[in-house]
Amino acid sequence: MSETVSLRKESHPSKNAIMVAEIITVGDEILIGQTVDTNSAWLGQNLNAIGVEIGRITSIRDTEEAIVSSLEEALDRTSLVLMTGGLGPTKDDLTKQTLARYFQTELVLHPQVLSMIEGYFASTGRQMLEVNRKQAELPANCRVILNRRGTASGMWFEHDGKVVVSMPGVPHEMKGLMEDEILGLIKEKFSGQTITHRTVMTQGIGESYLAEIITDWENQLRSEGLSLAYLPSPGIVKLRITAKGIPNEKATEILNSKVEDLLKLAGEYVYGFDDQTLSQVIGEALRVKKKTMCTAESCTGGIIGASIVSVAGSSDYYNGGVVAYSYDMKADFLDVNRSTIALLGAVSKETAEEMAIGIRVKTRSDFGLATTGIAGPSGGTPDKPVGSVWVAVSSAKGVKSKLFRFKQNRARNIELTMQSALFMLFREIIESDLG
Amino acid sequence: MSETVSLRKESHPSKNAIMVAEIITVGDEILIGQTVDTNSAWLGQNLNAIGVEIGRITSIRDTEEAIVSSLEEALDRTSLVLMTGGLGPTKDDLTKQTLARYFQTELVLHPQVLSMIEGYFASTGRQMLEVNRKQAELPANCRVILNRRGTASGMWFEHDGKVVVSMPGVPHEMKGLMEDEILGLIKEKFSGQTITHRTVMTQGIGESYLAEIITDWENQLRSEGLSLAYLPSPGIVKLRITAKGIPNEKATEILNSKVEDLLKLAGEYVYGFDDQTLSQVIGEALRVKKKTMCTAESCTGGIIGASIVSVAGSSDYYNGGVVAYSYDMKADFLDVNRSTIALLGAVSKETAEEMAIGIRVKTRSDFGLATTGIAGPSGGTPDKPVGSVWVAVSSAKGVKSKLFRFKQNRARNIELTMQSALFMLFREIIESDLG
Repeated sequence: MSETVSLRKESHPSKNAIMVAEIITVGDEILIGQTVDTNSAWLGQNLNAIGVEIGRITSIRDTEEAIVSSLEEALDRTSLVLMTGGLGPTKDDLTKQTLARYFQTELVLHPQVLSMIEGYFASTGRQMLEVNRKQAELPANCRVILNRRGTASGMWFEHDGKVVVSMPGVPHEMKGLMEDEILGLIKEKFSGQTITHRTVMTQGIGESYLAEIITDWENQLRSEGLSLAYLPSPGIVKLRITAKGIPNEKATEILNSKVEDLLKLAGEYVYGFDDQTLSQVIGEALRVKKKTMCTAESCTGGIIGASIVSVAGSSDYYNGGVVAYSYDMKADFLDVNRSTIALLGAVSKETAEEMAIGIRVKTRSDFGLATTGIAGPSGGTPDKPVGSVWVAVSSAKGVKSKLFRFKQNRARNIELTMQSALFMLFREIIESDLG
Repeated sequence: MSETVSLRKESHPSKNAIMVAEIITVGDEILIGQTVDTNSAWLGQNLNAIGVEIGRITSIRDTEEAIVSSLEEALDRTSLVLMTGGLGPTKDDLTKQTLARYFQTELVLHPQVLSMIEGYFASTGRQMLEVNRKQAELPANCRVILNRRGTASGMWFEHDGKVVVSMPGVPHEMKGLMEDEILGLIKEKFSGQTITHRTVMTQGIGESYLAEIITDWENQLRSEGLSLAYLPSPGIVKLRITAKGIPNEKATEILNSKVEDLLKLAGEYVYGFDDQTLSQVIGEALRVKKKTMCTAESCTGGIIGASIVSVAGSSDYYNGGVVAYSYDMKADFLDVNRSTIALLGAVSKETAEEMAIGIRVKTRSDFGLATTGIAGPSGGTPDKPVGSVWVAVSSAKGVKSKLFRFKQNRARNIELTMQSALFMLFREIIESDLG
């Protein structure tokens, strides 16, 4: 997951009534920083998709007091609260008992849940303990949501038109309960507005500059009641256009036409749609064209190869590559001229180009991608400061190269080099028909 | 980031008064699930380390109403609130204006911040916009925390003995402000209990199994008023031992003796201390021994090289490597016998060993590390199911190899292979004196 926090925010057009829910995550492990809360983002995405927005996320300790006070506060603001965590078998996990008291009911043994828990332990070959048997005791007045992936059941409480849902904190169990049953129940109970999204992926342009280029388009979009979010991560800006309260088919038509207009303004920076990664679109393009690729990495140390390989099935088009970190490796494995390095330096246009050509020829690939640069913090010169990177792409048409000057820390310079290099390769592949 | 939810909690010994702070993260991107909030976990870890616990984390929308109400609620419960997000240059980012109104002050131009912002844009060669100039306007009554990594300053407000700190949401900017200045200010203002941590890094052993091996040691530790946290991430379990309310020097002595005892029980799984990564300890060991290394990666696609290269100065000991994804590359670049692959398969002990030897010989390195496996989701056979990986390490002493059977998804299998391979290499390097 990206660590980026966006600097721009989604604008909300004037809206009809939208269901706004809240999330409460229970567990000391989140507050001490032992666990990153990925559940809330997943819930946010999946609830948004059915027209339910999240108004607030609260992470609290495993104490009865914290559970009760945060729940009361949330129910003051909203009629749907989703809770995760605190349902484990150990005595630290208090959510179930606290909810039973809160909703003035008692725990009763649920025979179906008990036999599921027994089956779960039988199938994993682990010994079932008394604390696990207790997990089959559930509040009498809740709807039990069966958990096929673990031993903690979900609970759906309804009271005075308000709903509280409690789920285990283990991500794949929580997701299972949501997908199997809870999303459906929420849709039924709180039929929200229809929401349709379209996402456009861009590389190589900053958020502010992109915003300038598309100002008029964006203003027009907003005046029509659509909304736009800029979602940046290193080297990438994702644009998400949203239509609310418009039937899906009609909305899709509108969004497609907006995207077409956008491509006319900023198409040279666009590489894909709907959360695609550069490695995915490169893979798809190579597959369609029945071409292959290879990599020669210096400052990126193999991360470009790792990104290509993160896509399942990449062995169909990726031959592999060389991490040529030393001068010797550039010469021995990539046939870079030792005199090129001696005269012009390892970080130079010529070295980058010879690397790209060398790896392409030696691996008999259609495209060769090479990087050489100074990631930092040391190694910079006045002429070639830290963050100077040459990227080259070699193909049957010849070799292209480009100098980048990133001014970030080591990790960020490497990440930006990877994204920029993949984008250069992508452009070269899709333009290769012309040659 | 790890999705793991730990089932174990840190035990708190009986304690003196402990400073409890709260975190508020501002930004629609968190609520719509576009961004996973990793800042809070980082803050939790780093504040815990200086004796400040987190009582609650609240994620809210970018609205004045949400900012004010959550801030008031938090200040009712605590005297230290850390806020992240909502400080970008666009009009949707309201935190600064809202805080100025909340603390009844006005925005004034801060000349030093303005010249830093100008310098930032000059150095990146990007055009500075009016909205960026506005970022130098800051509340008159706050202490400004200079941001060397971006254009949004931090703000430290003090009122009635309570402190509110506002920081940008971009993780590396937030971390920079905390490390440069804010952690020190918090320590000064809220001198909590003396807290001393010692962290032990382990690889290759699960949390539950590790807990079994060290049960008696852990019970003894807790009976002495120390606490222990298990902090798992893929392939790694970090053990953090904490002493509270004991003067630093004495605490360090106690913790060191506990660590010594721990090493007797689980030393074979320990690779380092205090958040070291495997690539860091490998680098240090190679530097001390004046040795070099190289990599030959198949299923890991270059991620091991990238991990080695993530350490600054790695060119001193890392020659580079080959990502041998195809059969041809294994043969052409690593001198793996084509008959080995044909007879025994690319995922075999023999292929892994020939890869490790081949890269070591061809790059004239002291250590060669090789991986070959089936990352999935396809490519598995009954004999070699998805997740089967061979890792080999070659050195002057010979070659060692090991079969792993990970049973995870593609990304996780690759990550676990990397950690396991690095650990094998590390053990081989530190044991190399014996040969």
